[in-house]
Amino acid sequence: MSQSVDSAVSAVRPYIEQHRAAFLDDLAEWLRIPSVSAQPEHAADVRRSADWLAAKLRETGFPTVEVWRTPGAPAVFAEWPAADPGAPTVVVYGHHDVQPAAREDGWESDPFEPVVRGNRLYARGAADDKGQVFFHTLGVRAHLAATGRTAPAVHLKLLIEGEEESGSPHFRELVEQHAGRLAADAVIVSDTGMWSEDTPTVCTGMRGLAECEIRLHGPGQDIHSGSFGGAVPNPATAAARLVAALHDEHARVAVPGFYDGVAELTDRERELFAGLPFDEQRWLGTAKSRATHGEAGYSTLERVWARPTAEVNGIGGGYQGPGSKTIIPSSAMVKLSFRLVAGQDPGHIEKAVRAWAEEQVPAGTRCDITFGAATRPCLTPLDHPALQSLVRAMGRAFDQPVGHTREGGSGPAADLQEVLGAPVLFLGISVPSDGWHAPNEKVELDLLFKGVETSAYLWGDLAEHWRTEP
Amino acid sequence: MSQSVDSAVSAVRPYIEQHRAAFLDDLAEWLRIPSVSAQPEHAADVRRSADWLAAKLRETGFPTVEVWRTPGAPAVFAEWPAADPGAPTVVVYGHHDVQPAAREDGWESDPFEPVVRGNRLYARGAADDKGQVFFHTLGVRAHLAATGRTAPAVHLKLLIEGEEESGSPHFRELVEQHAGRLAADAVIVSDTGMWSEDTPTVCTGMRGLAECEIRLHGPGQDIHSGSFGGAVPNPATAAARLVAALHDEHARVAVPGFYDGVAELTDRERELFAGLPFDEQRWLGTAKSRATHGEAGYSTLERVWARPTAEVNGIGGGYQGPGSKTIIPSSAMVKLSFRLVAGQDPGHIEKAVRAWAEEQVPAGTRCDITFGAATRPCLTPLDHPALQSLVRAMGRAFDQPVGHTREGGSGPAADLQEVLGAPVLFLGISVPSDGWHAPNEKVELDLLFKGVETSAYLWGDLAEHWRTEP
Repeated sequence: MSQSVDSAVSAVRPYIEQHRAAFLDDLAEWLRIPSVSAQPEHAADVRRSADWLAAKLRETGFPTVEVWRTPGAPAVFAEWPAADPGAPTVVVYGHHDVQPAAREDGWESDPFEPVVRGNRLYARGAADDKGQVFFHTLGVRAHLAATGRTAPAVHLKLLIEGEEESGSPHFRELVEQHAGRLAADAVIVSDTGMWSEDTPTVCTGMRGLAECEIRLHGPGQDIHSGSFGGAVPNPATAAARLVAALHDEHARVAVPGFYDGVAELTDRERELFAGLPFDEQRWLGTAKSRATHGEAGYSTLERVWARPTAEVNGIGGGYQGPGSKTIIPSSAMVKLSFRLVAGQDPGHIEKAVRAWAEEQVPAGTRCDITFGAATRPCLTPLDHPALQSLVRAMGRAFDQPVGHTREGGSGPAADLQEVLGAPVLFLGISVPSDGWHAPNEKVELDLLFKGVETSAYLWGDLAEHWRTEP
Repeated sequence: MSQSVDSAVSAVRPYIEQHRAAFLDDLAEWLRIPSVSAQPEHAADVRRSADWLAAKLRETGFPTVEVWRTPGAPAVFAEWPAADPGAPTVVVYGHHDVQPAAREDGWESDPFEPVVRGNRLYARGAADDKGQVFFHTLGVRAHLAATGRTAPAVHLKLLIEGEEESGSPHFRELVEQHAGRLAADAVIVSDTGMWSEDTPTVCTGMRGLAECEIRLHGPGQDIHSGSFGGAVPNPATAAARLVAALHDEHARVAVPGFYDGVAELTDRERELFAGLPFDEQRWLGTAKSRATHGEAGYSTLERVWARPTAEVNGIGGGYQGPGSKTIIPSSAMVKLSFRLVAGQDPGHIEKAVRAWAEEQVPAGTRCDITFGAATRPCLTPLDHPALQSLVRAMGRAFDQPVGHTREGGSGPAADLQEVLGAPVLFLGISVPSDGWHAPNEKVELDLLFKGVETSAYLWGDLAEHWRTEP
């Protein structure tokens, strides 16, 4: 490492150490607010959580802090312009609402009374997502202290929503409404995780999502399988054949046009994924599954992170009670979800699936297809300067090389990417054992402060290495 | 027609005409007893119905009449030996219990207060099955009167069960228990129908039935389709692929060994079926379906009457509620029923299906297969002398040629065939418009008396033309 790196580290770390106790006290105060967005009885707590965060951001130094109302729970917006008008602009995304939690779910201590046991802070929201939002407050102050600045090296914006745990029903609308205020050159999402305690990683993409329900209509009502069986189309058979036709013998999605435009993995990404200490048996344990199965030619990590998929989330038709009922059912339905990767367009997928499904359905069976709202995939190219800054900042904080992952799931980050036209980066320090949505959620304190430190290094590195368009 | 035929007709018809009013009064009395076996509150009525029938059979002249108790509702057994010890023995099967019925279901009159409107007798059980059981009482008396006998020309037995509308739960056991008393050269089932008012027919077979439930187990619990989708086997997909693999591209059942031993249709049977006035559009209306679909190379009637089938009666797995849920379901299930034809053995089918299903299931998916009780198929060869007697007797009663049908469904007749080792014939005069199990069930009075007449001719014809083994 260069001299400047060493000096940055030596300026940042003591500052963080010095403010460690106060930072944890503040975070604990926030964690005590049960901002459960899914439970109407906590609506006031979610509002209180927004107000608490807004006050704390003002205290941190953000000159502009606003609570943005929505038809649901409020979001918090904050802005701190750089001194240099030509500096890049970043918007940090996170959320201040949390999953429901009750002591009787199996918590060893009150989920809303934070407690440190060993080197871990236990509380609902410790990792998802209050801890990961909050590390930016000490991060930006450490950045200022270490560099002697009075404003961050980049134009810094924060958007911390209050409905993520309820499916972000108003998020897209909120972002569209405030697109001008939110304009940025990059989005930093702090609501994800790393590979493990020992293997810091950055995530470079999330899959998109398109969901549909296909309902197949046969006889006008359930009919007797003795009197009519074998001579009329059975919609449950048609539904099953549709699902069976979804994949070819290589477990590739067989819908014509499905792979159109798919951004293929580069050799470099495949190398990076392959370099992670992946234990397939352990992964299968997490998946509670007995075997892997997927698209031929790809590893398990490639399949869940970087390949588009089609999954049946539900199927139903006819008699499902105990015993038997000799009917040909009147209708059957399947719920399908398609995970999408960069280069795939949900609109194109919908068209392709509709054409394919209608083609499959046998004569005499009617087919209704309904698509829900879609989420676009996002992917940051490995050579993007902002991503390289993030990798450097994280490497400096962790004192070790930083690996690359992606996320198999889908999230509101895609809305930011799409509306703002900016790439999404993921700065998360949570680990799989943190217990998101589960009892005894915790955050590893060492990692939490590595998050602070990464935030402290990132803004300067971005300003130094990234020339954005004016 | 020969001289003897004419004289038989001229002796039988006046006798029936003379007793018509009393016969209808008696039948109405029986129909007033609401012998609904499915409803516990009618248990005493079902017993009363058995007692009523037993008394009436004694009055008819049967020297032996017994009410056979079962763990459920009682059956009635009656026996009237022929004078000639070498005469064939037949056992008539029917049932004295009825489907539930209530005025508010859409009945134009009280279902248990029989009424004649036009040339039809309306009441629950008029066609299914009291009317069709009862015509044998006047039938046997007309037979005696016309031939001057004091006992029927054949050894005549009746077995009228009380649980048919509840799935005959104790019937097999009853038949096995009394196999010696029931021993017969042929079984005459009077619980079916004819093609139509204008087209009298005999039914020559029923399909058998084997039912199973296949449950496929994937992940230990529902798992996130974003985190794991595309990389582990999905049991709903496996269930769908199993169902899709049930049939080949010719809609033939693709389970290896499924067609082993199948009695193929003869050219003569195909001709007879093809000779029926079948209107496919009208049949589709009854099936409430928009198109026919089935095994290549067979007509619709052949498909439902004479070909074995595999149908999905139910399929289910994962999320089936409103909206979407991005999971890979933990399990999925399918309920299948197989209709079997003569030559197929349910035990062999079970083995074949198990072997096939286990072969289909992908690695990492566990498969539980449960088979329920099976019903064997039954089929009477066209050249069987007893069937020829039945066709002659019916032709004489109807004054017109008699067509041939089969039944696509399955019934307790198969138990009699199997336990007694005797062929099953079907003497039914009900027509599709009679409304079995529906409101306003009725029997056509003209057809009811054609049933009486057929019964009157049948016993003499059987004794005359059928030489059974001693």
